[in-house]
Amino acid sequence: MEHTQTAAGAESWAASVIDDLVAGRYTRVPPGPPTNSLWARPGSISLAGGIPDPDSLPIDQIRQAYLTVLEREPAQALEYGPIEGFAPLRNYIATELCAEPGVSMTAENVTLTSGSSHSLSNIVDTFVDPGDVIIVEQPTFLGALRTFVSSGAEMVGVPMDSDGLISDALDATLTRLGHEQKRVKFLYTIPNFHNPAGTTMTLERRHALVDIAQRHRLLIVEDDPYGQLRFRGDPLPSLFSLARGRGVLGVGTFSKLIATGLRAAWVIGEKELIDALITTRYDAGSSQLTERMIWAYVEAGYMEPQIERIIQVYRDKCDTMMRALDERCSKYLSYDRPDGGYFIWSRIPDGLNSPELAQIALSEGVSIVPGTVSMTEPELGLPFIRLAFSYVPQKDIFEAIQRLGRALEKATKTA
Amino acid sequence: MEHTQTAAGAESWAASVIDDLVAGRYTRVPPGPPTNSLWARPGSISLAGGIPDPDSLPIDQIRQAYLTVLEREPAQALEYGPIEGFAPLRNYIATELCAEPGVSMTAENVTLTSGSSHSLSNIVDTFVDPGDVIIVEQPTFLGALRTFVSSGAEMVGVPMDSDGLISDALDATLTRLGHEQKRVKFLYTIPNFHNPAGTTMTLERRHALVDIAQRHRLLIVEDDPYGQLRFRGDPLPSLFSLARGRGVLGVGTFSKLIATGLRAAWVIGEKELIDALITTRYDAGSSQLTERMIWAYVEAGYMEPQIERIIQVYRDKCDTMMRALDERCSKYLSYDRPDGGYFIWSRIPDGLNSPELAQIALSEGVSIVPGTVSMTEPELGLPFIRLAFSYVPQKDIFEAIQRLGRALEKATKTA
Repeated sequence: MEHTQTAAGAESWAASVIDDLVAGRYTRVPPGPPTNSLWARPGSISLAGGIPDPDSLPIDQIRQAYLTVLEREPAQALEYGPIEGFAPLRNYIATELCAEPGVSMTAENVTLTSGSSHSLSNIVDTFVDPGDVIIVEQPTFLGALRTFVSSGAEMVGVPMDSDGLISDALDATLTRLGHEQKRVKFLYTIPNFHNPAGTTMTLERRHALVDIAQRHRLLIVEDDPYGQLRFRGDPLPSLFSLARGRGVLGVGTFSKLIATGLRAAWVIGEKELIDALITTRYDAGSSQLTERMIWAYVEAGYMEPQIERIIQVYRDKCDTMMRALDERCSKYLSYDRPDGGYFIWSRIPDGLNSPELAQIALSEGVSIVPGTVSMTEPELGLPFIRLAFSYVPQKDIFEAIQRLGRALEKATKTA
Repeated sequence: MEHTQTAAGAESWAASVIDDLVAGRYTRVPPGPPTNSLWARPGSISLAGGIPDPDSLPIDQIRQAYLTVLEREPAQALEYGPIEGFAPLRNYIATELCAEPGVSMTAENVTLTSGSSHSLSNIVDTFVDPGDVIIVEQPTFLGALRTFVSSGAEMVGVPMDSDGLISDALDATLTRLGHEQKRVKFLYTIPNFHNPAGTTMTLERRHALVDIAQRHRLLIVEDDPYGQLRFRGDPLPSLFSLARGRGVLGVGTFSKLIATGLRAAWVIGEKELIDALITTRYDAGSSQLTERMIWAYVEAGYMEPQIERIIQVYRDKCDTMMRALDERCSKYLSYDRPDGGYFIWSRIPDGLNSPELAQIALSEGVSIVPGTVSMTEPELGLPFIRLAFSYVPQKDIFEAIQRLGRALEKATKTA
């Protein structure tokens, strides 16, 4: 009886929260989901997601590393660990994986997180209040943009060219924001094999950026998920290294080195900044088991050979896609050859716009990402598309680009 | 040359962010770290952390489940998955693990997260703006309190007794807050084997709570990490079940059923609310590998026997600790016998305060948690301590309580 009475009132009760949701009175719920699913369709070939090559995943090595940990230290691996993560893995990142000339780091300079997206949330939670300014490259990584917008910060974009972020434009922007007395919290940049722009910031631009940042006392958040995946040319020093590790937070991830399904990443920087990130966490730490598995994977010597292997895989795919583009799409598209990473960024013909082209491409059976999602003002992305060569099977690349060519032909005819 | 110039300016540059941190100008950095480490010390016996029994971890079964997944579906497990999590595991939670009379749920009603702490952050991110009110039980789970405070919400505590949250006090509080035109976003409650209070909300109180919530159109967040760990008596219907799944978000976790090191948990509720939680995420989803491993673990039939096994372990530990307390500390402490879970909550003698007692206990070689950390106003926790029987080895329980007895003796002499 009492039970029935309880259920009877429930309709109106639940309705209040849901009505509020539908009416948008929960201001922190973003307008859309965090997904590329809009540009995917069963049966189509995907050049959309920045997803690793499935055939190159180090499955046997991961299995072996799990077995090692569950044999050697099962109880520690299956319990809560320190919020900042497993110390030997932090030490490895500080002294080996991220070691560069001019910087001397220890485990204390590293905090482990549940993926780079989580790193960026942690940075925003720690440093950003509503009304602050975050500066991003234009274009920038859509996931980062979404996280930054959620903080209530004002987003300011600075343009890139084929040498990376344009230094003079950044300098002028910072001067203007200074006059406006805006609180600029940080610059977010992806210097290597940019997502989505594919470009690598030149050494000159890196020096200029560090100088500008120091002059304006600007914190740099340097995201480098693809830096190890270089196909050609010599590695350039990171901003972190040029600044001797000061005033820069380095964001790195095991997603592109081992597997995205692990959700394991890090932030490296000055101890005071890292301590602030560790304190501003509410998740009881990341998975100890995952972190210890990664450490066992490193100890077993799996890291270097696997990186060499996937460099070869992505270099081949990139070369194939460049050849296919040159053959099938050079009439319509202009693009640079990336030196590494996952992405080719391309300008589309005048008169076309990228979301429409993406729809037509989908109807031709290939998914691509319109540039609009990577800009603080979407209309700036209308003339661009992003093509990922990381996920598509090698054998499907020509067919995918052929379909894109057909879509471009159709689109230009109707434009 | 240019390099040297870059490094030279770095001191003052980095100093600006760090100066701001030290001066507390980053308002979102909490005052302290999220840890129980204050009450731990090498060599002492820990009754502090709410940590599972290490000897009962289902190591072999977890190993087997990883092997199954890495054999059967390695590529899918090692890639990004859907933000809301692996569908078969969501379906299992909806239709089996959380199935109760009066509620009919599907995978659409469940979102998977990286641990209950992450679930609570996700709920706060979605529904709470600064200045809103969150109602908590007094005492409440310190991790939840820390997350809620971070949102800038006003915390309002409602007292408990040995029957759970006091209904009349809640009703009066809601009426007052209504008159003050406060936006009350939700009530956070732990009805079963409360952390830290050990109590279980009676059926009468559950009905009363659901009625009050419906009358005031209040969303309930029902956290139930220990509900399956019942030592005696019949299970009571959840608030979720009494409300027919409407107006209640159920928060559950695999931490206490399998292992905390996995970081895997869920929220169950009406589809509209779950959709809002999924949309308000910035972490690119939780680990597919972990979720698929848990599903393989469930499929293999490991879940039920493991739960039966740990119920026995915690029942025995609880009984031993109760006997030890009755023998050694009944002169000083008053406490109820919990019907399940991890914790015994105790009132300490008049004239003592819990942080001082915790320090004295630590010097005697046993760590306990003072009640002050579990209260919206710390001074309300001065007369209480929390003792966890989950982690301490069975063989050390008598010794631990003996040390606590000595600490109490010392403290009362000097008080």
